[in-house]
Amino acid sequence: MTLYGYFRSGTSHRTRIAMNLKGLDYDNISVNLAQDEQLESAFKAINPQGLVPALQTDDLMLFQSPAILEWLEETYPETPLLPKDAAGRMKVRALSAMVGCDIHPINNRRILQYLRNELSVDEEQVLLWCQRWISDGFTALETLLAKDSAREDFCYGNRPTFADCYLIPQIYSARRFKVDLTPFPNIMRIDERCRTIKAFIDAEPMNQPDAPH
Amino acid sequence: MTLYGYFRSGTSHRTRIAMNLKGLDYDNISVNLAQDEQLESAFKAINPQGLVPALQTDDLMLFQSPAILEWLEETYPETPLLPKDAAGRMKVRALSAMVGCDIHPINNRRILQYLRNELSVDEEQVLLWCQRWISDGFTALETLLAKDSAREDFCYGNRPTFADCYLIPQIYSARRFKVDLTPFPNIMRIDERCRTIKAFIDAEPMNQPDAPH
Repeated sequence: MTLYGYFRSGTSHRTRIAMNLKGLDYDNISVNLAQDEQLESAFKAINPQGLVPALQTDDLMLFQSPAILEWLEETYPETPLLPKDAAGRMKVRALSAMVGCDIHPINNRRILQYLRNELSVDEEQVLLWCQRWISDGFTALETLLAKDSAREDFCYGNRPTFADCYLIPQIYSARRFKVDLTPFPNIMRIDERCRTIKAFIDAEPMNQPDAPH
Repeated sequence: MTLYGYFRSGTSHRTRIAMNLKGLDYDNISVNLAQDEQLESAFKAINPQGLVPALQTDDLMLFQSPAILEWLEETYPETPLLPKDAAGRMKVRALSAMVGCDIHPINNRRILQYLRNELSVDEEQVLLWCQRWISDGFTALETLLAKDSAREDFCYGNRPTFADCYLIPQIYSARRFKVDLTPFPNIMRIDERCRTIKAFIDAEPMNQPDAPH
């Protein structure tokens, strides 16, 4: 399989974590979002959507990370990233959506560029924008984790799930946007735990071949 | 089951469609988002997340519509809303995420209120903001639908799936924000088809008891 992604893209990062946790081997091809390479015809010939991540298999081009993760889970069920019971699966998917729908999309590059270029928002206000949505989302997540997962290693139970694949890249992004993380001890605890695991370490943005050195 | 929602909330709307398609009976309780009722203690006692939709079952409180839809599919597999094969499921979930992650979250009320109140963006620019993200997302969707679904009744194949549950409320929102829909003939064709189906009609915002009359 070939994963088209970008070192700093949160959706690429979450896909790398899931593939690493499942022990899947893949080639990594970098699409430089900072130079809008995803919109160029060379990449659009591969994925007409012009989006990363995109995962090329022998006979499919997969896109949209929530769909890719579900496909990985169905196709490679060894090392499951969802619990077995429907209630647990609901919980993990809800935690994932809290990041994947309510935090990440609002702070991605095209939105920030629109704020800067179309609405003349200055850099200080752009940073406050990012901090606001990450803090709001993390506050909601922290409440849930404190209630249900305070004695667990990960977002749900004692092994990584989709929810950790979503959360860890969002923490990386939170640090980049200088979010105060002290109000989120449960999120920080899960972050510390995940940073000891090779699948997470190998997926980190700065450990990718296309990261600046 | 009891569905806590709001007539105009796109995520409530998509959940109503899915439940109607599956023939599930439920009580509808309105939480008035325009008056921030979702943040009041009366509702937070029911769902600490302060989010709609929330689906109360005998022993669970479900939240986050992407997780609710997957839970409905697993718990009530009759009248499936996902195809049987993994590739088809990936496609439907990807189309769903194109709406659920890349369009809907950017135009919801809290974001528009921030633009107005914190960034002093005027109403004309707020409208352009909404139109931009809906048009961008619909352009991507239309390309895919024209390529793969032009001879089909729905977003994927000849029966409704999750993708239609996501798309139809977004079209409703597009009309509300005066988006020019003429560049999207495949999306319009699917909209027309769905509007002939009782499950979709019954889920429409203006057919809810809390809609203004």
